[in-house]
Amino acid sequence: MNITVWNEFRHEQSSEEIAKVYPGGIHEAIAKPLRAAGHNVHTATLDEPEHGLTQECLDKTEVLLWWGHVAHGEVADEVVDRVVARVLDGMGLIVLHSGHFSKVFKRLMGTSCDLKWREAGERELLWVVDPTHPIAEGVGQFIELEHEEMYGEHFDIPVPDELIFVSSFTGGEVFRSGCTYRRGRGKVFYFRPGHEEYPTYHNEDVQRVLQNAVQWARPTQAAQPKYGNAPFLDFSR
Amino acid sequence: MNITVWNEFRHEQSSEEIAKVYPGGIHEAIAKPLRAAGHNVHTATLDEPEHGLTQECLDKTEVLLWWGHVAHGEVADEVVDRVVARVLDGMGLIVLHSGHFSKVFKRLMGTSCDLKWREAGERELLWVVDPTHPIAEGVGQFIELEHEEMYGEHFDIPVPDELIFVSSFTGGEVFRSGCTYRRGRGKVFYFRPGHEEYPTYHNEDVQRVLQNAVQWARPTQAAQPKYGNAPFLDFSR
Amino acid sequence: MNITVWNEFRHEQSSEEIAKVYPGGIHEAIAKPLRAAGHNVHTATLDEPEHGLTQECLDKTEVLLWWGHVAHGEVADEVVDRVVARVLDGMGLIVLHSGHFSKVFKRLMGTSCDLKWREAGERELLWVVDPTHPIAEGVGQFIELEHEEMYGEHFDIPVPDELIFVSSFTGGEVFRSGCTYRRGRGKVFYFRPGHEEYPTYHNEDVQRVLQNAVQWARPTQAAQPKYGNAPFLDFSR
Amino acid sequence: MNITVWNEFRHEQSSEEIAKVYPGGIHEAIAKPLRAAGHNVHTATLDEPEHGLTQECLDKTEVLLWWGHVAHGEVADEVVDRVVARVLDGMGLIVLHSGHFSKVFKRLMGTSCDLKWREAGERELLWVVDPTHPIAEGVGQFIELEHEEMYGEHFDIPVPDELIFVSSFTGGEVFRSGCTYRRGRGKVFYFRPGHEEYPTYHNEDVQRVLQNAVQWARPTQAAQPKYGNAPFLDFSR
Repeated sequence: MNITVWNEFRHEQSSEEIAKVYPGGIHEAIAKPLRAAGHNVHTATLDEPEHGLTQECLDKTEVLLWWGHVAHGEVADEVVDRVVARVLDGMGLIVLHSGHFSKVFKRLMGTSCDLKWREAGERELLWVVDPTHPIAEGVGQFIELEHEEMYGEHFDIPVPDELIFVSSFTGGEVFRSGCTYRRGRGKVFYFRPGHEEYPTYHNEDVQRVLQNAVQWARPTQAAQPKYGNAPFLDFSR
Repeated sequence: MNITVWNEFRHEQSSEEIAKVYPGGIHEAIAKPLRAAGHNVHTATLDEPEHGLTQECLDKTEVLLWWGHVAHGEVADEVVDRVVARVLDGMGLIVLHSGHFSKVFKRLMGTSCDLKWREAGERELLWVVDPTHPIAEGVGQFIELEHEEMYGEHFDIPVPDELIFVSSFTGGEVFRSGCTYRRGRGKVFYFRPGHEEYPTYHNEDVQRVLQNAVQWARPTQAAQPKYGNAPFLDFSR
Repeated sequence: MNITVWNEFRHEQSSEEIAKVYPGGIHEAIAKPLRAAGHNVHTATLDEPEHGLTQECLDKTEVLLWWGHVAHGEVADEVVDRVVARVLDGMGLIVLHSGHFSKVFKRLMGTSCDLKWREAGERELLWVVDPTHPIAEGVGQFIELEHEEMYGEHFDIPVPDELIFVSSFTGGEVFRSGCTYRRGRGKVFYFRPGHEEYPTYHNEDVQRVLQNAVQWARPTQAAQPKYGNAPFLDFSR
Repeated sequence: MNITVWNEFRHEQSSEEIAKVYPGGIHEAIAKPLRAAGHNVHTATLDEPEHGLTQECLDKTEVLLWWGHVAHGEVADEVVDRVVARVLDGMGLIVLHSGHFSKVFKRLMGTSCDLKWREAGERELLWVVDPTHPIAEGVGQFIELEHEEMYGEHFDIPVPDELIFVSSFTGGEVFRSGCTYRRGRGKVFYFRPGHEEYPTYHNEDVQRVLQNAVQWARPTQAAQPKYGNAPFLDFSR
């Protein structure tokens, strides 16, 4: 499968501590398990021309993963339009962690996508609430992340089509951590963990979820629905 | 309840035939059963200043009904922003018929909201698929509309939170005709029928659905969720 | 509204400690806020003839609340059949706490309804994940119960139609604590808290949820759908 | 994949006309496209010992397809228990046409599963309402069946987890024709068409849906959730 991992790639260049956790950038850590699964993985970052997301790149991309945090506002509306159009046209989209506030995710959700947060290195437990879902395949009863940023409800998203993970945090907050949506002909998966200061993307369970998620999000080879003025169907054959 | 009925009010002024079906405008026909149910109903139209949807008007409005068709593009983005913000803040929204293509609905859905259509005066049967839903209260097994515009699947909307009506048309098409969504703190109901050339809003079952829908969509008196940086909860009391 | 509160009423008779928490039985504590809201509330218990759930009683009941724990197996199948039939016929049903393992709930769900549990008096926080839902009306961001039995995921239920509350517990487990379902013409709400050793039903927020829930679960005055052999619809009028 | 096709196999033995449509029985027609897709397909019928559904057979079966009509009452409760238990344990289940009234389906749904029907050889159009779903992969905008039995709403099922197909019939009725459910660790797909008098299972689109559905329903390799008394999680490592 042709996969593109997009990362704003700022924290890793401005902070030595973060660069140590993610040498090469978060995108490389995200790409690694997907390459190990045999996919053709391309990376793109904010400071490339067109943020690396040219029409040509997106046309080839079957699933796009998105990590952004401090620079959502710098993503050009033209590129946002292009990404949203490709999702509606069938491209899978996996939105990670602070990507909840990306222009792309907010446009596809239609809500504020706001939430509570706290940077205190709390323990996160991601409980599997849908053990039938292929995105949870091979994962145990829960995923444990010793240190993570807290995200807490209320998470201002539309009701998920499917809810796969629910997190608890040391402080007592909960969060809908793995949510799927269908938008147009495309599938969207939001996956909560992935704060830049912690080695979350090196965690094997997190990597497995990403591997499962790209499989789940692959474009369905369905006929493009026809819209607009429709003549009467002809059954005279 | 304080209700505002918004109508673009163009067809009724440009076509004598349509004016005969809806003297006073479609908004007056929509308002009538809501007034009969005892609500305080205000109307607003496109050509008023700010399209009649001032901040003051929206702040007082508990449920807004929306009918538009040929002039979606003329609705100012500033007003769209204001309406969307009020929905996310708790105002109910009922989107009627060709309002599926309004800027407001598309913004809240995140999809194209496209569909098939045909103006051939076909018979529409709206079957109740959720007889437990309060919006279907008092309606029989189906609503029959002798002449209506056809809308056919695929309807490019997010998966509805609740599906209440499914229509068939003479030509064999089907349509998800009554769909609910939650967006932010607000409730949204899309109700398909209501082509300007037919007396749909004079139909008693359609009127009952509108009466039920405003009740369902009324703002929930919930605490406004708090978002942003959250200190640890204090259980030391 | 005519409401029946059903309680197996065993713990309160065999344990002095529990009788102190719930003098008169848990059913009286559950009935109290419903009576205060002006409803006509009847109680019924396991050791009455037909467990107090005669056909006449159920025919009059608009919403039934169910609390059971140690004696699920003693509930006669004939009474279970009767209750299930009334739910499918439109009676609302609110299943409380350990009622998850009642015959009635398991029959309506079709799954094992199993879960994790631990009696350690942990703090439970029930977070509102759907602030638009009328069952959450008037409740803050979360309900705090200082001491409760832990119930943890995976909770083996069908995917809820609506998810309103998600709980965290001191030990780090999470639970889908407020779930709605439609079954036939009836509405079902499962609400997690209510261990017999703790004064949960004296908590004002819990009482408010019960008051909201009976309103939500009231029978919809819909036409009884017709089933079986159907002649062609006649549009010749 | 190890697949079992179960058929009550009565119509084909009592009616020459039906035997002509399905020589070898409906189970052979259902099995054919699944064998063509490379699966290891076994068939079982009502009149075999234990209806051909021994514990050993079910333990090996990854997906079970079910066709029954006139003899639902003859299926032994012990076998029903066994099938339901295997579904909750992860086996996929595809329920076909008049199987809506099978003991197995009714047990898993918790409702009457009743509907309207009419045997008049009407045209059925199954419209794809979820073009992202893998079960609809490779299918056009709709599937046309020139002659089918009519099934009409209201269909007394729980709200589907996913709604993939909606049918219209010549007489104007509609039906939710392709519905998914999760029950325990198993996935369930109900697919409407397949009246015994018509060559529905020879239709290429129907065959494709069955091929897609068994892939979708395959057991997820998830950890078996642990239920019951749970000690505190130990994070001291």
